[in-house]
Amino acid sequence: MMKVTVDLCVIPLGAGVSLGGYIAACERVLEDAGLSHELHPYGTNIEGEWDAVFAAVRRCHEVVHDMGAPRVFTTLKVGTRTDRDQSLQDKVASVHRHLGQA
Amino acid sequence: MMKVTVDLCVIPLGAGVSLGGYIAACERVLEDAGLSHELHPYGTNIEGEWDAVFAAVRRCHEVVHDMGAPRVFTTLKVGTRTDRDQSLQDKVASVHRHLGQA
Amino acid sequence: MMKVTVDLCVIPLGAGVSLGGYIAACERVLEDAGLSHELHPYGTNIEGEWDAVFAAVRRCHEVVHDMGAPRVFTTLKVGTRTDRDQSLQDKVASVHRHLGQA
Amino acid sequence: MMKVTVDLCVIPLGAGVSLGGYIAACERVLEDAGLSHELHPYGTNIEGEWDAVFAAVRRCHEVVHDMGAPRVFTTLKVGTRTDRDQSLQDKVASVHRHLGQA
Repeated sequence: MMKVTVDLCVIPLGAGVSLGGYIAACERVLEDAGLSHELHPYGTNIEGEWDAVFAAVRRCHEVVHDMGAPRVFTTLKVGTRTDRDQSLQDKVASVHRHLGQA
Repeated sequence: MMKVTVDLCVIPLGAGVSLGGYIAACERVLEDAGLSHELHPYGTNIEGEWDAVFAAVRRCHEVVHDMGAPRVFTTLKVGTRTDRDQSLQDKVASVHRHLGQA
Repeated sequence: MMKVTVDLCVIPLGAGVSLGGYIAACERVLEDAGLSHELHPYGTNIEGEWDAVFAAVRRCHEVVHDMGAPRVFTTLKVGTRTDRDQSLQDKVASVHRHLGQA
Repeated sequence: MMKVTVDLCVIPLGAGVSLGGYIAACERVLEDAGLSHELHPYGTNIEGEWDAVFAAVRRCHEVVHDMGAPRVFTTLKVGTRTDRDQSLQDKVASVHRHLGQA
């Protein structure tokens, strides 16, 4: 088992400029997979076990192709750490703590 | 003038594993620049004029170096469009509309 | 089966500023996995079956942690397409063709 | 002056699936700017002074829009360091040295 935090951004190509429907389909994939996830304007932050997270990313590609996009381009930021457990919320909280101390 | 939306993720290298203080310094740079910005667990979404946004990104590198990091690695997602004006909030709202129609 | 082309960039954190040894270890992981791969100054381009490629990416995280890095940050560009088969070499060749026509 | 190394990947949206012509146009922008650059299957590595590099990235967006793409999505990896001067070639050579010592 290896816990991972991911920022996923899926871009369908050859599918026009309105991508909201494709992104919504990916959100449903993450929801169905039971993964903790949070949409932001440039992607979706996800946390979970490595294999479950990447199975869901693969499923997103499959779903977006099935919706008609001939090409899918995805960017991922992927983080693992062995020193301690850190959730997505911890990451934001740490920055806010430092801002509060300013 | 060219409006741009950016997802910025600054990673100091050679500066240990606790990066919250560096990220907080970058948030202050964006605040001081008067740019619309919103922190998320894997970066910060920014919108503004191209030159103002990239001047702030450069300033983040300078500030993180000044804090002692010998090396800075940054990832950026950068979006421009000529068909219409779309804010960061519009992007999330579009996905939510599609999810609501499911 | 789903073929994928990936640009992988692994950044160990809390491991100093000299990252060449870690990257070399990741190259060996890709080599041992029998994946087609090509190092460039900012990452490694890989092509292969989705599951084999992502198993190797996971193995890279494990190996870099085992070498002593408490935190690993990776960026990935991931491409799939259903319209036709395109190798990494095809992508560069297509651009060169266009440049030759200039 | 701040030297920067960048991995640039420009994706036109709403412009079909054959992107080679757009990428070739970006290569010409980098060439005209006199920047050191090297195409790879998933982007182009560039090195130069910060302001010259990012002026060229902006020019790429303008050129791709002028060619008809209503939306441009770009990913960038950006590196600066104050400890020493490192070229793009040094980065690859460092990994190869480690592989030779294996």
